[in-house]
Amino acid sequence: MKCTRCKAPAMIALPGHNAAFCPDCFLDFFERQVEKGIKEGCGYRAPQMTAADDIAANCAETPAGAAEVDAATRAGHSNQVSPPLFTREERVLVALSGGKDSLALMLVLARLGYQVTGLHIDLAIGESSRQARAIVESFCGKHGLDLQVAEMAAEGLPIPRVKEKLKRPICSACGKIKRHYFNKAALEGKYDALATGHNLDDEIARLFSNILRWDASYLGEQGPLLYAENGFARKVKPLWRLGEYETASYAFLMGIDHHTMPCPFSKGASFNIHKRVWADLEQAMPGKKLNFYLEFLEKGRRHFTEACHATEQSLAPCERCGYPTSSGVCGVCRIKEIVR
Amino acid sequence: MKCTRCKAPAMIALPGHNAAFCPDCFLDFFERQVEKGIKEGCGYRAPQMTAADDIAANCAETPAGAAEVDAATRAGHSNQVSPPLFTREERVLVALSGGKDSLALMLVLARLGYQVTGLHIDLAIGESSRQARAIVESFCGKHGLDLQVAEMAAEGLPIPRVKEKLKRPICSACGKIKRHYFNKAALEGKYDALATGHNLDDEIARLFSNILRWDASYLGEQGPLLYAENGFARKVKPLWRLGEYETASYAFLMGIDHHTMPCPFSKGASFNIHKRVWADLEQAMPGKKLNFYLEFLEKGRRHFTEACHATEQSLAPCERCGYPTSSGVCGVCRIKEIVR
Repeated sequence: MKCTRCKAPAMIALPGHNAAFCPDCFLDFFERQVEKGIKEGCGYRAPQMTAADDIAANCAETPAGAAEVDAATRAGHSNQVSPPLFTREERVLVALSGGKDSLALMLVLARLGYQVTGLHIDLAIGESSRQARAIVESFCGKHGLDLQVAEMAAEGLPIPRVKEKLKRPICSACGKIKRHYFNKAALEGKYDALATGHNLDDEIARLFSNILRWDASYLGEQGPLLYAENGFARKVKPLWRLGEYETASYAFLMGIDHHTMPCPFSKGASFNIHKRVWADLEQAMPGKKLNFYLEFLEKGRRHFTEACHATEQSLAPCERCGYPTSSGVCGVCRIKEIVR
Repeated sequence: MKCTRCKAPAMIALPGHNAAFCPDCFLDFFERQVEKGIKEGCGYRAPQMTAADDIAANCAETPAGAAEVDAATRAGHSNQVSPPLFTREERVLVALSGGKDSLALMLVLARLGYQVTGLHIDLAIGESSRQARAIVESFCGKHGLDLQVAEMAAEGLPIPRVKEKLKRPICSACGKIKRHYFNKAALEGKYDALATGHNLDDEIARLFSNILRWDASYLGEQGPLLYAENGFARKVKPLWRLGEYETASYAFLMGIDHHTMPCPFSKGASFNIHKRVWADLEQAMPGKKLNFYLEFLEKGRRHFTEACHATEQSLAPCERCGYPTSSGVCGVCRIKEIVR
């Protein structure tokens, strides 16, 4: 098998792209796909401005940073073309778990010349968290990249203690806490966007799960770009065009040492069966995953955006921390109270 | 394993229903599920009457039978509850291919006391069609059931000749021809509904295929009940709550001799990979197929009905045969012209 571009021996076959690459050409392909994903944004029409957006954009009383609604971004683009995820003039905060996806994302964005700062959340889950933090710190040190660390122990939310006090599964609470602190750090640091390492396989598994439940409000907002609004930072997923295999290959070829110790509280992802099913479909029809995701963004999602706007309009600032919630006191503040 | 109902030894396990049955109790279960599927209709809100419906309902110039729009059925039901697929006072034409699903459907409806007439379309595909027709005739004779046969050779459309003359895949043309003559027979015979033997697995494979393409106009109308309108007979799928395995078990237990000779022109259904994927999901999560279909009917479909109404409004009578088409002369009349 020869490299599709340079005819040297190929090492990485990508049937979905009808191509195979040598290591150098693969790295080039990977970076181009990331750049394309950033430029394309998400290939869908920017949502109409709603009355709620206008309020949020002009409201001085929403929490720090929340007034920075992407009103200008939206207004500056027609209803036909999506804005890019972010530009080289903007500051991007990258969520770094220490896994290969997040580290690959950080490195590729830095190499492409974007302004990135890492954010690691230390969950205080014993040896697993210690290893994750050490890997992230060593990675950022090696590549000369800025890093912030948010310590959940200092916030009164060490995850083992949360698990002990909470009567419900820890994974959803832990996810809620991480999203809260990612958002807080992005808004307080006045970053233009918060980037996560979700890849195409993650997006497909989530999309399929949302379809299986016909959850219209999730379906209406799923995509590589969520505009900043109502106290939420802009959220972006620059790896959305690349699957797990491509991201793992990039991390391997770039010599990224990543966190491999599984979380002791997680019993394996619930998305596993969905990922297996989609691996079968991809094998039978190479390129189906990307094609399905693109078709969703272009033709499927718009049927659900109304449900999504209805949900957004029910949000208000949390009575304690000021971050958006649909229920008086937000989930994280309620967890804090239980743990205290 | 014991029968869930009578504690006799069970022969048929149905994990999706968290049950197992002896043969007698299974037959009872099967008939109750069909009855439930007929009564429930499709569990969704009847669509709003549109201006186009009013026109169709009052128009004397639409082809024979087409004025029988289910306006009364719609008007008689609130927007919250679906009407049944049909009642015991209505006359139902059942499409009989000779396969186990269609024969099982015919038999179960007759046993439940519905007014059924069979309709077989003789496609004139050599030995395969001869065998299918003989089986259908023998089945209807044995059970004392009324049968009509429409001969495609007499209509100038023997399928082998259509295949010879047509430059495109025969399966879609053959499907178009069958749908046309099913509809024609239902309207000309003034039947209240046209029933087909599609089961839950067929519906799931079709739904998944429509989702993969995000085909909004198909998604907006998919379901066990399509109201009569604009020159189309009411179409119903009474086996929609039952999978292939249940239908095959019913056919086996009732001693139904069915057509097994594959069509020489079909290279295996394109839905096969979708069915395999859903078999995996069903195994991992018993009951998922029915649950997903019900959730679609209740929560998913409504997001697509607008697209569906837009398509309906582009239909007009075919210039030659008078049956509805979106393109001047309908597909079947165009095929006839090519074959002649």
